[in-house]
Amino acid sequence: MGRIVYCQGRFVPEDQARVSIFDRGFLFGDAVYEVTAVLNGSMIDNDLHMARLERSLAALNIPMPMPRAEIERVQAELIGRNGVREGTVYLQVSRGEADRDFVYPVDLPATVIAFTQARRLTGTKGQTEGVAVDLAPDPRWARRDIKTTMLLGQVMAKVEARKRHFDDVWLVGEDGFVTEGASSTAFIVTRDGRIRTRANSQTVLAGCTRRALLRLCEEEGTSIEEEPFTPQDAQSAAEAFLTSASSFVMPVVRIGDATIGDGRPGPLTRRLQALYFDTALGTAASRHAAAP
Amino acid sequence: MGRIVYCQGRFVPEDQARVSIFDRGFLFGDAVYEVTAVLNGSMIDNDLHMARLERSLAALNIPMPMPRAEIERVQAELIGRNGVREGTVYLQVSRGEADRDFVYPVDLPATVIAFTQARRLTGTKGQTEGVAVDLAPDPRWARRDIKTTMLLGQVMAKVEARKRHFDDVWLVGEDGFVTEGASSTAFIVTRDGRIRTRANSQTVLAGCTRRALLRLCEEEGTSIEEEPFTPQDAQSAAEAFLTSASSFVMPVVRIGDATIGDGRPGPLTRRLQALYFDTALGTAASRHAAAP
Repeated sequence: MGRIVYCQGRFVPEDQARVSIFDRGFLFGDAVYEVTAVLNGSMIDNDLHMARLERSLAALNIPMPMPRAEIERVQAELIGRNGVREGTVYLQVSRGEADRDFVYPVDLPATVIAFTQARRLTGTKGQTEGVAVDLAPDPRWARRDIKTTMLLGQVMAKVEARKRHFDDVWLVGEDGFVTEGASSTAFIVTRDGRIRTRANSQTVLAGCTRRALLRLCEEEGTSIEEEPFTPQDAQSAAEAFLTSASSFVMPVVRIGDATIGDGRPGPLTRRLQALYFDTALGTAASRHAAAP
Repeated sequence: MGRIVYCQGRFVPEDQARVSIFDRGFLFGDAVYEVTAVLNGSMIDNDLHMARLERSLAALNIPMPMPRAEIERVQAELIGRNGVREGTVYLQVSRGEADRDFVYPVDLPATVIAFTQARRLTGTKGQTEGVAVDLAPDPRWARRDIKTTMLLGQVMAKVEARKRHFDDVWLVGEDGFVTEGASSTAFIVTRDGRIRTRANSQTVLAGCTRRALLRLCEEEGTSIEEEPFTPQDAQSAAEAFLTSASSFVMPVVRIGDATIGDGRPGPLTRRLQALYFDTALGTAASRHAAAP
């Protein structure tokens, strides 16, 4: 490792980026985060991520630690200084540092950290051949709409899925319907060609890539039904896919022990994948061209 | 602040105690903790806390970072160096430091931190006059038996209760029964004199003070029924109390808008409070006397 990361107002080598043991992010999971994809050196859908960051902070009564434009400058500087062409930029805001007490002091200066992770997001095996997702009960808390760092439920579900030779996992709520993936939004295409994904509520995280895709589909007249579906619906679907900031539109070709369609990414999935990707790349390219 | 705290193998001034921003405790809530009470400079029920720490770590597949006796030496040294006569010692173990990925590497060296908090635990207004607890839906995840640092649900519930002028809050599960307090175990005494508390399961944390009290009651022939109770049962109870490491046996005199009994700690509650406290103080005193 040898990145420059951002920590509490300074750009420092990653091995010098440290926070107090009294930081409430460390002691209470009292922190929220965002992950933004980077393509051709430019951030994708970052306006949606910044809007969700503001919503998460407001839900926890944490003030926005700096103006949105300043956060975006930090993200852009990290991408530039680390020469990231493709990958992600991670941003975390925790409530700040105080002696340990469940009840937090007001007006605590928040802790802000950010770092990049350079990695291949496009042209991966998953993007071209699709991924296999396991099914597991959703173990998470009641406020999944807040993007907190309390991620052990997702960690445990993903580790278990990986042990069972799946790439990822879709979680099933107590209502018997799929909530979402452990770090993605779940979609199916029914045999009569309808695209379905669960509506936003406190039960799921409002996906930024989900929102961007819904907007693109609306623009071109493709309708997506915001209706929940069961694991059985999913396993008998014609096609399936997931969305996330770093997965874009990712084909799903196996769900539990059921092969979806003929086991290859379906035609509608491929079309949406191309639609999202072309728009993202186009945006990235035009932003890049416009940069000084 | 001017404590000496323990951080990654060293005793350091608290403002120098820092962990990497890549610590999984900070990024994922991938950490567990214990809080042990200190009376007369000695730890109370620490054997139970160490046993629970081992269970929490095992549930998350985190190896015990050092032998139990070594952890106890760290705790004792912190108490000694900070001259704590009464208060708590906090211990946290996180999975360790790694570049961010839900799926963790195996054999990561764990991060261990610990610190003391000197404060009055005995003779407080709560101990003598009792506390008021609010009622709220339990927002937590599915594995409440693991004592993780994913505490935002408890933080939010306690902050809300405090705003509504309650001292604390009891949480109500989707099954309609009280699960436990936000950081304590809930007990009631029914009008026919039966003491009830919910049985241990993944739905609640197995309280160490709960366990110690049950053992004491068993020894003296007082039976405690491990049965769940509803908010209505609680509000119409003859007496109520809660237990936690730092609250010992704490009388509860108001639950939501209902006054319990005559609004003062009940006689059975007072007897159990004295029973636990005398044993704890006796143990602390004898341990203290035996110390070099």
